[in-house]
Amino acid sequence: MKLPLLRAQVLEANLEIVRRGLVLYTFGNASGIDRETGLVAIKPSGVPYDKMTAEDMVVCDPDGKIIEGSLKPSSDLETHLELYRAFPAIGGIIHTHSEFATAWAQSGLSIPAFGTTHADYFHGPVPATAELSDAEIQGEYELNTGKAIVRRFSGLDPMATPAVLVAGHAPFTWGKTPMEAAHNAVILEYVARMAFTTSVLRPDGTGVSQALLDRHYFRKHGASATYGQK
Amino acid sequence: MKLPLLRAQVLEANLEIVRRGLVLYTFGNASGIDRETGLVAIKPSGVPYDKMTAEDMVVCDPDGKIIEGSLKPSSDLETHLELYRAFPAIGGIIHTHSEFATAWAQSGLSIPAFGTTHADYFHGPVPATAELSDAEIQGEYELNTGKAIVRRFSGLDPMATPAVLVAGHAPFTWGKTPMEAAHNAVILEYVARMAFTTSVLRPDGTGVSQALLDRHYFRKHGASATYGQK
Amino acid sequence: MKLPLLRAQVLEANLEIVRRGLVLYTFGNASGIDRETGLVAIKPSGVPYDKMTAEDMVVCDPDGKIIEGSLKPSSDLETHLELYRAFPAIGGIIHTHSEFATAWAQSGLSIPAFGTTHADYFHGPVPATAELSDAEIQGEYELNTGKAIVRRFSGLDPMATPAVLVAGHAPFTWGKTPMEAAHNAVILEYVARMAFTTSVLRPDGTGVSQALLDRHYFRKHGASATYGQK
Amino acid sequence: MKLPLLRAQVLEANLEIVRRGLVLYTFGNASGIDRETGLVAIKPSGVPYDKMTAEDMVVCDPDGKIIEGSLKPSSDLETHLELYRAFPAIGGIIHTHSEFATAWAQSGLSIPAFGTTHADYFHGPVPATAELSDAEIQGEYELNTGKAIVRRFSGLDPMATPAVLVAGHAPFTWGKTPMEAAHNAVILEYVARMAFTTSVLRPDGTGVSQALLDRHYFRKHGASATYGQK
Repeated sequence: MKLPLLRAQVLEANLEIVRRGLVLYTFGNASGIDRETGLVAIKPSGVPYDKMTAEDMVVCDPDGKIIEGSLKPSSDLETHLELYRAFPAIGGIIHTHSEFATAWAQSGLSIPAFGTTHADYFHGPVPATAELSDAEIQGEYELNTGKAIVRRFSGLDPMATPAVLVAGHAPFTWGKTPMEAAHNAVILEYVARMAFTTSVLRPDGTGVSQALLDRHYFRKHGASATYGQK
Repeated sequence: MKLPLLRAQVLEANLEIVRRGLVLYTFGNASGIDRETGLVAIKPSGVPYDKMTAEDMVVCDPDGKIIEGSLKPSSDLETHLELYRAFPAIGGIIHTHSEFATAWAQSGLSIPAFGTTHADYFHGPVPATAELSDAEIQGEYELNTGKAIVRRFSGLDPMATPAVLVAGHAPFTWGKTPMEAAHNAVILEYVARMAFTTSVLRPDGTGVSQALLDRHYFRKHGASATYGQK
Repeated sequence: MKLPLLRAQVLEANLEIVRRGLVLYTFGNASGIDRETGLVAIKPSGVPYDKMTAEDMVVCDPDGKIIEGSLKPSSDLETHLELYRAFPAIGGIIHTHSEFATAWAQSGLSIPAFGTTHADYFHGPVPATAELSDAEIQGEYELNTGKAIVRRFSGLDPMATPAVLVAGHAPFTWGKTPMEAAHNAVILEYVARMAFTTSVLRPDGTGVSQALLDRHYFRKHGASATYGQK
Repeated sequence: MKLPLLRAQVLEANLEIVRRGLVLYTFGNASGIDRETGLVAIKPSGVPYDKMTAEDMVVCDPDGKIIEGSLKPSSDLETHLELYRAFPAIGGIIHTHSEFATAWAQSGLSIPAFGTTHADYFHGPVPATAELSDAEIQGEYELNTGKAIVRRFSGLDPMATPAVLVAGHAPFTWGKTPMEAAHNAVILEYVARMAFTTSVLRPDGTGVSQALLDRHYFRKHGASATYGQK
């Protein structure tokens, strides 16, 4: 993939989370990776979204060395890079502080699969990581955040559950492309809102059956998907 | 009714649920039936609302055989068809994942008739279905969803309570026309929001008296209705 | 006051509750009274707000006999008339089904004076009426609703607490003019939202001290008010 | 600083809280101080925001004596002046009745540091003051409100936690400039919303570790800050 295309895709994913109401001020960031070259484009740190251009996206190599761009990358860059290393099928990552997904992350609780809206996108609960230790926080914090996510997905397929809640922090989502990651961030926020209300209505609720989870997930994903047009 | 008119009505009902904030991305669907011919028009599956035209509405016969239209119908078609077969007085159906009605559906709880806003439209609680069995989910799922709704309305008048919550899933509403079904979907979401707040304020609340339910319902419906202009 | 002016004021108050997000579809109604002649202008029943003109306002005498206007008046007319008879200082009335005020009304609970925002407008809790008896509901329901409000204000000054929650139904507010009543309806909804959150955070909360209630109320109302410009 | 600049900055901060949805009608006020001269500019009392000009800002000396401007200053002026006297590093103050921050203030509870969004701006819980005594309320109320805030910050650095909840009332925020104070008011409201949801999901939650609080706070503030562009 040409770099201008990658940067344009990353800009567009950044703007999608703004359009969908997931962003306050300069919160949040999107990145994308070109798997052929391993180059990653990411939002610059603390720049207003309404003045951002594709050229502002910072391009770095897999080790975080800046290849192109005059701005500093998002402070969460090392988290993104760790996820790209550990999850080879993903092509884009979104980090937001969207209201309800962040509240779930702050609670340290996974979001149960309470219904089919959830099952259409996430093939099981959206997991919350363990809290980071003081040593992890005081050391390479952003890298260690990535490692905590990767540990949490031990035994899980990141493509079947393309979202995580970092305990005490906020969500990350991903997808095959930056825009798919942004789409998943929007869905996660909506699912988080409804799960909050559901958990208040039914504190003893445990979520849908495995059969319903499978039915809805595989109606939209995989070889036997029937949703949408060909 | 001419098919172009039916398709136009179904498109308009689809757009109404978007305008009223009940839709995220391509969620939800509207359909309408011509009772003379038995033909049903329904939203195509997974098509963006802002590009949808009346011609995109898929027309099928009562058995779901496509009569007109080049797109695939909504994956919930069989649920709609079952409701049209069982409830002969209805002319339109809406399915949404609107936030609070869906949260109630996810909780598996019926929405009590907590006040006159509810009573103006629904002559009793908005019922939640039983959960589907694994066999029902793994078999003809969408048809079985329709059957679960119909079973739940055994002994209930679907025109007096034109809405249902499918447990673990989301609401369906209906009406004499597609637009009336859409109107009922908007009201249901509003009633669901207020019922959530009411149930938190008064966990022991049981809802209004039968006398008040009757008074408000029959002020707006039936032969002795006095609401609105002649 | 000339009738065209009264009708214009009533139209403007109706539109204010729409602009401020208190109205879904044709819900709610505003009225105003000319105290010299006793004539009341009120919104017509079930007419869309976006097509409403001042000429559509229905004018009736204190007994509800229509004097001018070709449309049917709001079905809540008799409630308005009873309040005008009982509360001689008021010049306008608003009825809404605004989300949080209605949820409090559905709960049958008065809204405690949890803070200074409340105290700036309401000199004590916003009272909830008793539930109407079956006989009251099955008889002259709208008139009896007014009587239940008036009974609830026995010993209360309606100008110091220009709002009420009708149990199982929704709020009414009033003021010296229709627009002041609309303003109070907007404030009531905001106060109801915050009181909901407060009551969840502090289920044991009882509200502000009488001293703080007095201080804020009299900073904005009465002879010693200091708020605003001269 | 020239007075026209100070007035323009204060106007802009007033408008920012309107743009960000923190204001209903004429609620709230912003002020700024010129530390060289000690002059303070503040919003006039009860004037509609949409007609407000920089010239409408009232300028007074540190004792509240009006130096320039034909309008009455905000009734909260004495609270602002007390904070400027006690917190010499601040250059602007905002007072709002924003929905969730006000609900926390009404509850009398401090907002725990539940996550990194909070830690990015507030280096510890956002403290709630004690309730004012009847004597404090009946005496110089606005001045005593300021004194209650200052007492609450005994042992706290107002620049590290630029916000307070006045019990039974509402929040005040501050910053090096009026616009920074407005920014903090917007963040406070967002943090308050998420803290509400978090506290419902996890009534036993105590908030993030000191290590995480430090990490995020010092990533954005102080000599070793790395967030944003140079």
